[in-house]
Amino acid sequence: VQFGAIVNRSPLLVAISTDGAAPVFGQAIRARIETLLPHGLQCWAQAAKAWRPLVQARNLSFAARRRFWEKFTQKALQSPEKMPTGHECEAMIAEMDKLSSAPPQGRVTLVGAGPGAADLLTMKAIRALQAADIILYDDLVSFEVLELARREAKRILVGKTGHGPSCKQTDINTLMVSLAKQGRHVVRLKSGDPLIFGRATEEIAACRTARIPVTVVPGITTAQAAGASLCVSLTARKTARRLQFITGHADDGKLPQHIDWASVIDRTATTVLYMPRRTLAQFSAIAIAQGLDHSTPAIAMVNVSRPDEVRVFATIRDLPDRIAALPQGPMLVLMGQAMHNTEDVLEGEIMNEIKEFYSFSSSKLS
Amino acid sequence: VQFGAIVNRSPLLVAISTDGAAPVFGQAIRARIETLLPHGLQCWAQAAKAWRPLVQARNLSFAARRRFWEKFTQKALQSPEKMPTGHECEAMIAEMDKLSSAPPQGRVTLVGAGPGAADLLTMKAIRALQAADIILYDDLVSFEVLELARREAKRILVGKTGHGPSCKQTDINTLMVSLAKQGRHVVRLKSGDPLIFGRATEEIAACRTARIPVTVVPGITTAQAAGASLCVSLTARKTARRLQFITGHADDGKLPQHIDWASVIDRTATTVLYMPRRTLAQFSAIAIAQGLDHSTPAIAMVNVSRPDEVRVFATIRDLPDRIAALPQGPMLVLMGQAMHNTEDVLEGEIMNEIKEFYSFSSSKLS
Repeated sequence: VQFGAIVNRSPLLVAISTDGAAPVFGQAIRARIETLLPHGLQCWAQAAKAWRPLVQARNLSFAARRRFWEKFTQKALQSPEKMPTGHECEAMIAEMDKLSSAPPQGRVTLVGAGPGAADLLTMKAIRALQAADIILYDDLVSFEVLELARREAKRILVGKTGHGPSCKQTDINTLMVSLAKQGRHVVRLKSGDPLIFGRATEEIAACRTARIPVTVVPGITTAQAAGASLCVSLTARKTARRLQFITGHADDGKLPQHIDWASVIDRTATTVLYMPRRTLAQFSAIAIAQGLDHSTPAIAMVNVSRPDEVRVFATIRDLPDRIAALPQGPMLVLMGQAMHNTEDVLEGEIMNEIKEFYSFSSSKLS
Repeated sequence: VQFGAIVNRSPLLVAISTDGAAPVFGQAIRARIETLLPHGLQCWAQAAKAWRPLVQARNLSFAARRRFWEKFTQKALQSPEKMPTGHECEAMIAEMDKLSSAPPQGRVTLVGAGPGAADLLTMKAIRALQAADIILYDDLVSFEVLELARREAKRILVGKTGHGPSCKQTDINTLMVSLAKQGRHVVRLKSGDPLIFGRATEEIAACRTARIPVTVVPGITTAQAAGASLCVSLTARKTARRLQFITGHADDGKLPQHIDWASVIDRTATTVLYMPRRTLAQFSAIAIAQGLDHSTPAIAMVNVSRPDEVRVFATIRDLPDRIAALPQGPMLVLMGQAMHNTEDVLEGEIMNEIKEFYSFSSSKLS
């Protein structure tokens, strides 16, 4: 095999070949790998070469040696720009000596899976998925996102359809904590951002009570992807100085009892309602009765960022009648003056040009 | 060179060697590249091999052939799971025939750079940075993030320090549009999420007026990274059913005139104030006068997600006095009952354990 493209972090080398099929394709792959592998990794690779004899000379077990190199790798990938020193090598080896007699310590990482499209995950989320032993994931997490995980990681669905009809939050907490106590790295993969309507409070508290280290990797929340898909800003200097997210349902599936209606009727806010499919009619009626302009532009979107994304444009008064025809899937409603004219723009001639332009390079809009 | 690890998308092959220095390190690199290269790419690589003779047989110019393979690559990387067909190959070649006589069409992509840490960028943002001809970036975009861009891309700072003392929004719009009209792919790289206090409205409108195709790639907004760093949910079923983002200053640098104070004093909301360094004292005084509980927990954070991140915990009454000592850098203030006890948890013994645990594998908390 002839390798036409090389990523050089010597002694770390990555070589790419397309067997002559498409050199341009190979170069593009090279460019992506270049970005994935920061230049600082060269120092780490050189350090690995220098340290290898030192590690071998220590009388470590095979498992401890392996763990040294795993920690080394983790450190290199997490802080490639921070050059390793000889002192650090010594400290890491000493740590390994200590750790090799201690049981492995489990931990939990809450990871935001974003709205569905795999390319909306952050690099940090992808790394967490690749470092996981076990992944506890929700119904709404897409197959495409799960595919990014380490192949050896065990995947457990803990959504509503997962453990029978009633996978309660307390059951998820118990499972998560018990797996971490067994020394596993548990990734709790949650749709959107775990910290926005993700019930992270309960899960973080459960970890802390059990003295399990817990960290959070944020995710793109659906409102952000909806704005990007519509190509409309969620805030605007003139018309939307405040952006708010409100949950469309309480624990019992009904509209939350304590909505601050004054904040909803404010004309200078963009309001995003999460998961309001069953409660939108009631929300709309109360909001209008409280003083919200019934002609406020409102958009319902289902399956945001996924190939089957659909949307309906209306006023807040008419939207409840319009959503009946929408397909199953997670729903979001955006409303406010910032959404004004969105429909015109999207369905006007400019959008057609954009569609034409992108139809060649993307399957999404075509 | 011996290659110890292979990513196989035959005829596309990627081989990794550490020259024997650290096989475990090489395997980890392999795993990352595996994730970067979806399995569907194998079909594209096979198609490239099959189509190459067809492309060569067409009497295309060198530039048109190159453009065919660039489009092919773009399509493959954007929709790897969507298998190419022979029909598509024909269509793409025909398109190339047409395009080779047309001038290149420019476009604009507004990309969210997130709060600073490079690993908080989405894969989609990284791809956009790698496809850019020109990058117009703000002051607050970190060096680390800019480093992810294609090396050949021209970088232009359009922040306050960029074009003299007054790089106005209209100047940025004009520059962006004129570059796109020259056929360039312009990436407008904005701190955080372009659609949240990013003045995207003006830039999208400028593109549409000039009939330049424009798309948006969302980014993690600072509030999300702040929550992740604090390890605290921004919403909570019991105490925070609504999450709102408010800008801390208007165009003139003063507190916005039309803040809906009713929405601020609501006890069931988490409020995040963006960039309130100069206006926090006034905000706090008015909010308390309007009825906000003066003991509401409030946290100021500077340089969220960056190595020099700092934070101060207080009540909303005391916070303005406490921020004077904070270093320069973008500031965020989070307030509400969901922030209750954050300080205790972070500074208590559990956090110490977490710090100890992570000090080995991460430089950030150590």
